[in-house]
This record gives sequence, C-alpha cells and structure tokens, in this order.
Amino acid sequence: MAALSEVSSNRSFGGYQKVFSHDSKELRCKMKFAVYLPPQVEDGKLPVIYWLSGLECTEQNFIMKSGVQRYASEHGIIIVAPDTSPRGCNIPGEDDSYDFGTGAGFYLDAIKEPWSENYRMFSYITKELPEVINSNFATVEESQSIMGHSMGGHGALICVLKNPGKYRSVSTFSAICNPSIGAWGQKAFSGYLGPAESASWADWDATELVKKYSGPPLEILLDQGKADPRLETDLFPENFVNACKESEIPVILHMRDGYDHSYYYIASFIEEHIKHHAKYLKA
Amino acid sequence: MAALSEVSSNRSFGGYQKVFSHDSKELRCKMKFAVYLPPQVEDGKLPVIYWLSGLECTEQNFIMKSGVQRYASEHGIIIVAPDTSPRGCNIPGEDDSYDFGTGAGFYLDAIKEPWSENYRMFSYITKELPEVINSNFATVEESQSIMGHSMGGHGALICVLKNPGKYRSVSTFSAICNPSIGAWGQKAFSGYLGPAESASWADWDATELVKKYSGPPLEILLDQGKADPRLETDLFPENFVNACKESEIPVILHMRDGYDHSYYYIASFIEEHIKHHAKYLKA
Repeated sequence: MAALSEVSSNRSFGGYQKVFSHDSKELRCKMKFAVYLPPQVEDGKLPVIYWLSGLECTEQNFIMKSGVQRYASEHGIIIVAPDTSPRGCNIPGEDDSYDFGTGAGFYLDAIKEPWSENYRMFSYITKELPEVINSNFATVEESQSIMGHSMGGHGALICVLKNPGKYRSVSTFSAICNPSIGAWGQKAFSGYLGPAESASWADWDATELVKKYSGPPLEILLDQGKADPRLETDLFPENFVNACKESEIPVILHMRDGYDHSYYYIASFIEEHIKHHAKYLKA
Repeated sequence: MAALSEVSSNRSFGGYQKVFSHDSKELRCKMKFAVYLPPQVEDGKLPVIYWLSGLECTEQNFIMKSGVQRYASEHGIIIVAPDTSPRGCNIPGEDDSYDFGTGAGFYLDAIKEPWSENYRMFSYITKELPEVINSNFATVEESQSIMGHSMGGHGALICVLKNPGKYRSVSTFSAICNPSIGAWGQKAFSGYLGPAESASWADWDATELVKKYSGPPLEILLDQGKADPRLETDLFPENFVNACKESEIPVILHMRDGYDHSYYYIASFIEEHIKHHAKYLKA
C-alpha cells in the first residue's frame, strides 16, 4: 500500500476535513481524495459513504459546497470524495472537452485505446480506493454506502448494481440514469467503450443493469430537480424507475420543484440523503 | 435608482439564492452582490443581515461555502453578500497584490489619490447598498444587522461603530480587530489613507473607534479560531476586547480550539451567529 500524503487539513464541525494524495496503481497517476473524519473517529470504527462528483469536478467541490460535514458529524459517518478522473496522463485530447477525459472519467473501466490504460475509475472506486481508506482510517469495512451527482450519480448506481452486496445503500442527485441514450453518456461511452453496437454499453448503463440485478435487497433513492436543464437530454430518471418497477426493485424518486443541477440544490437535500444512508449503515 | 440585472438564480432551502449586478454611484463601476431570499419573503417584509467577505473574495465565496441558506431559511432572514471592492477601474496597480486594490477594498472610504475616486466601500456598504436592497426587496428597513470575516469582520465592526443605531447587531469571524498594528491593515491604511501620522487611521480602526463609541447598547460577538495562522500578526481580537471592557461595551469572544481561517471554520459556527442576529432582529 503506497503512502498517503496529507494535502490539507481543516477542522470542521468538530472533526477534520482532510485531502490526501497517493499514487494510484489502477489509474497509473497521482490522485487526490477528500475524507471527512467526524469527531466520533476518536471512539472507534465508523461506517463510510463514498461520494462521486459530476463532470469538471475535483475532490474539492463536494466538500466546499454541499455542507455534508454537519450531517456526517451528527451521524458519525466518514465521507470520502475522490477526484473524477485520472489527471496529467498525457493522453492526446485528454483536456480538449469538459465532458470527456480529464474531469470526466465516468466511473467506468475504459476498453478503448488510448484510454484503457489509465481510465479505470470503476476499479479505482470499487477496489483500490476502499483498500486505501480501510487500511488508513478507522472504518467498519462491511459498512459502506455510495452516492453521487450527475455523472457521479451514474457512477454510484453502476458501482452498486455491478457489485451486489458491496454497498449497504445508494442515493443520487441528478443522476445520468440511462447514459446510452443521452448526449453526455453517448459521448463518453463512444470514447471509452467503442460504438454502441459493441454491446458493452449495456454493461455500464444503470437502466440496463438494474434489469439483470440479482443480489441483496436494495432501496434506491433518486433525487432530481424539476428545473434541471439536463433533465430531458441527459438524465432520464423515469427510465430507471420504470426498469426498477419491472424488476421489482424498490426505488424512491424525489422530484423537487424549482431546483436545478447545482450544489445549491444538493446542499438543500443532502441531510435527507445522509439520514437515508445512516439508517442502512447502522442497521 | 439604477436597475438591477439578475446574474443568477438558484433555488436553495425553499428560497432563492440570487446574484445581481448594478451600476454603483459611490464606486463608479458595475458591482455584483448576492442576496438570499428565504421562503418567508412571500408572506411579508423580513429583516436583513449584511455579510462582508475577506481578502480576495467576491460575492460568491460566502454563498457557496458557508451553508448560511439553511439558517436564513429557518429564521426568515434575507442575507446580502456584496463584493469586496470596486473592480475594473483601471487604477494603476489595482491588480498587483491580493491584499490591496481589487478584492481588498477594506470597507473604508479612501482619501488618498488615485484610490479616493472609486474605493468608497464604506459609503457603498452603509448607504448605497441598503438603499438598493430596501427599494428592490421586501425588507424591514429598520431591522438590519451586519457580520463579516477577516477584512470583512473589520468592515462589520467599523460600519456599526461609525453608525450608532443603524444596525441591530454585529458579529465577526477572524476579524482584523486592530488594523493599525497588523500587516494587512497597515498596508491597506497606508495605501488608502496615507501615512500613520496622518491621524486618519484611528477613524477606521475598530479598537480605536470602540473607545469613543456612544450610541445604543451593543453586544458584540467575535469568533476566532485558535489555529488561525494570522491570529498573532493581523487580527488582535484581545486588543478589541480590552478596549470594549474599558468602554464598558459588552463583548463575547469565542475562541475555537483547532479551527483556522477558512470557510470550514465559518460553516461550523454560522448557525450560532445567525441565531444571535435573529434574537436582535426580531426583538
């Protein structure tokens, strides 16, 4: 296990908001992640929630803007927020657009050259990062949940659906629920996986994956702003909900009047989500 | 009254976080300010808290990072967060340093050329901006308070001490309490006011002003992190507290173990401050 370097540490709601960097084996580059350690870490092991951010984000956006620390402190939960892609890999075109390459790893394992060597965010999030977290912090290893926003909502759903039993609960804000049919998802899947005909798209699309899910019971919590400008072109929560119903998987979809795609929206409802996860993490 | 232009509007905690721009007469430039309108604005007039940010900030930092909207929504208070200086005035040197000129207006009215024409943040904050707010939003005009961080804590204190009765309450985080003897304050006062010998410094230094204060009773709330790297070189809360005691002005100083100068610290205690102000605003 490579050593962690502490990038920053700020006291927050009785605990500490820290950022670390480490050399990732999966991604073959240096990666940063944020971890909030609530005051209860001094008294024993705690559950963990992983947060996956959206396009263009780093490990900073969620910890600066969501206000999650208050609720993590109240419930005694560690929060881990990784970066959204490998960085500085010198792949031609990696910095050309906001929705592909740097800042847009889409939480999948790329199969198409030249992305397949570094862009392995799925393996990083589901395997390497939990090993790093569990070996460096006082966690209850079997008590972890996952949530995310937009591209990170897609990420949270596929992490759960492709790893039955690994996470206690999952929730999303403004998730890209059916990437195979949306503009953001199609660009990313084409670039990382190859043409739609290659059939690999269904392996990374939550609406397809949930149709085949067989594992421990899930109660999926989706949150969506009705004033989200991407709702009709990229997100498609209703497709996911319909697929859940066909598969008899319990799903809750909160549609929020007037709320958009921003962190102002996330901050307004993050408390509800942390409470939802706490119920499962402490069961 | 010049018209306001809406720059952005995001639903937040049942209300709206908005940003507007307008042409400022005092500052002779276009200025932005943020205003949070809690859901209670639909039912009648509300009190207002003005927030003054620190060095390098714009109208964005507080509204993105403090989490104040939750508490403003709970208490039914409008929050106004202006920018920290004039911008784009084409004054030679205005962008040369982080702690003077752009982003560093210090909430005073400059008397030294070439700054004196535009750098009139004191008049902007205490006169022009309240007129703009009161004529465009449903406010209780006589019910306003003020607070701020670092340079903005200095600003909040001088706005109250130089305008007895204008504000119901004042609170600060990491305030520059005695700028005449600190590095940040001396640089700003020298540049905007002239040499220390000119005697004008005392007119803008809270620790000097409080010694002469005569007006309605005040209970000043200061908040300070013990791990603030600027505590010993720039802030001097104990000087201000001692001056208050000599003048028999009630003051509360919360010293917070382990907290620094960041918004992680502010977010951890903003709820306490909003409660403090609500007590006076609704009395």
